[in-house]
Amino acid sequence: MAEYFSIRWVEGKVRMLDQRQLPHHVEYLDFTTHLGVAQAIRDMVIRGAPAIGAAAAFALALAAYNSAASTAREFLFEMEQAGEAVKAARPTAVNLAWAVARVLQRLNHEEKADLDRLRVATLNEAQAIADEDARLNRQMGLHGLAVVPHKARIIHHCNTGALATVDYGTALGVIRTAHEHNRQVHVYVDETRPRLQGARLTAWELENLGIPFTVIVDGASGYFMRQGKIDLCLVGCDRVAANGDTANKIGTYNLALVAQAHHVPFYVVGPTSTVDLNLQTGDLIPIEERSPEEITTIGNYAITPQGASASNPAFDITPAGYITGIITENGIAYPPFEQTLHVLCHR
Amino acid sequence: MAEYFSIRWVEGKVRMLDQRQLPHHVEYLDFTTHLGVAQAIRDMVIRGAPAIGAAAAFALALAAYNSAASTAREFLFEMEQAGEAVKAARPTAVNLAWAVARVLQRLNHEEKADLDRLRVATLNEAQAIADEDARLNRQMGLHGLAVVPHKARIIHHCNTGALATVDYGTALGVIRTAHEHNRQVHVYVDETRPRLQGARLTAWELENLGIPFTVIVDGASGYFMRQGKIDLCLVGCDRVAANGDTANKIGTYNLALVAQAHHVPFYVVGPTSTVDLNLQTGDLIPIEERSPEEITTIGNYAITPQGASASNPAFDITPAGYITGIITENGIAYPPFEQTLHVLCHR
Repeated sequence: MAEYFSIRWVEGKVRMLDQRQLPHHVEYLDFTTHLGVAQAIRDMVIRGAPAIGAAAAFALALAAYNSAASTAREFLFEMEQAGEAVKAARPTAVNLAWAVARVLQRLNHEEKADLDRLRVATLNEAQAIADEDARLNRQMGLHGLAVVPHKARIIHHCNTGALATVDYGTALGVIRTAHEHNRQVHVYVDETRPRLQGARLTAWELENLGIPFTVIVDGASGYFMRQGKIDLCLVGCDRVAANGDTANKIGTYNLALVAQAHHVPFYVVGPTSTVDLNLQTGDLIPIEERSPEEITTIGNYAITPQGASASNPAFDITPAGYITGIITENGIAYPPFEQTLHVLCHR
Repeated sequence: MAEYFSIRWVEGKVRMLDQRQLPHHVEYLDFTTHLGVAQAIRDMVIRGAPAIGAAAAFALALAAYNSAASTAREFLFEMEQAGEAVKAARPTAVNLAWAVARVLQRLNHEEKADLDRLRVATLNEAQAIADEDARLNRQMGLHGLAVVPHKARIIHHCNTGALATVDYGTALGVIRTAHEHNRQVHVYVDETRPRLQGARLTAWELENLGIPFTVIVDGASGYFMRQGKIDLCLVGCDRVAANGDTANKIGTYNLALVAQAHHVPFYVVGPTSTVDLNLQTGDLIPIEERSPEEITTIGNYAITPQGASASNPAFDITPAGYITGIITENGIAYPPFEQTLHVLCHR
């Protein structure tokens, strides 16, 4: 077990590892309001679809504890408002909306007379979401073992480890499980521009875990595949449509295209909570456009000439046709995803 | 005409714009020995296949002027030794070897009795190579016009402008010509990790030229193509094999794969001096592996955790099958490249 954590409820506060400072500084920040958490999600103090889902749930727990409501109706209205504020932090990952809906649904089933009971229920549900995430990731890891050959050389994009989740990780969880089962894997870490989640976060996690890795630039995946050096691609997901189209960190789609050209299996890993059965296709998934400064500067270091314009979509859509399989806590979905995802999501 | 230049012979010295400091500082460095020039090529003070070809030729001119040889035989031996030292600076671009061979060939045709005449011939041939490069680039630009639609939105990888050549540029030269012919082009600038030649150098040149552009990360090309926002890809080349396989900056091959998946035309632009008819296929082209630090640090800023390993191939090979056409000073080669390149190289 790693000695760090992405997010925890600690004595009435939400504590998060400030991922913007990694790998150089391990600093935890405490948040006491749901709007503070929303801002932390927007600023990417915490990131990764499952982790921000848990953060959204804990944000509601903070709102519940801070509530001065005198009636259940007032309280529930405040919770709904808090939920809207948190959901607005980032649009692409479905996990924010999923976690908020789950907490609100739980409250709807509680006895309304007792406000303290509603407060406790909010925190309990948030904690349940967090605990469940850590558990489901281990299940995904075990299911994923089936697709990891002995001595597999794996390209991994972005960060999907303990930092991107409540614990253990999704795609990186599969890699951890394979490592724990002595598969002797080697990870080629896509650096993942512009925010370098691969070079900064995944490299840091792999180093902590003792899993051998090599950082490469995002544009080099084809070079290594053409040399026969890659056996498998594993990526996470921010939202999966009913047909299997997958929104994930920018660069994922390019990697999928390059993998298909080399007949390298391309697997998406994520909990069924990331599947949005309400959306028929990936074209309906909103794509967040982030600040151009994430491209034009690194730290305080300006890269481009002054005044240069940049376009910074944070995610892309990988059409289902490029995805070999989707590894969930309930098993691996294979095409046709319309059918298999439906089954796994209702298991 | 831009108000900067990549390389010039100035009063017995080779003057180069230090491209490592762009876009922040415009500083010229003077070199007085061929080994100094070789080191500058290795350190990427100057880069770009045609530009380092000219640098190699001027390096021989410096060696000639510094020579204390008392016989023609001694002098020619020194020139050959200097040529070997310069060629060893970087292995992938064929232009170093091409320029050295061309200067030595010229010397072989000179009257051997007169050492001063040999010295002058060395400089004259180097200057001829430089002048020719600027002229051929304009021819390429005009040939390239045929493939640039009105209002074309073009992805360009790395830097192929006046900085990468003696003047005007190759792929960027085509873009300049289109701009000068009012084609109203817009350039999507691949930032080109790890050394960011796109974000640093191409953005700087386009800004100087008043050509509209948007910087994107290398992993975003598929995102923009899938949205129908890209009409054309233009890249340079460091070496083209007889069959059309092309070595160019790492990330070029990924871009070609992504372009083909979206039926976006993918053109390579370069002078016939970059075609190496001695090599049957691209698999025979040596690929330079550069320092991992080019990936793990930006400026003085460390990205990865301490001790992280990285692999940094500087180039990749794009197989001919992914290339729509190769634009040279003698016209555009289309498949089958074995035949068309042969014809254009002997025109």
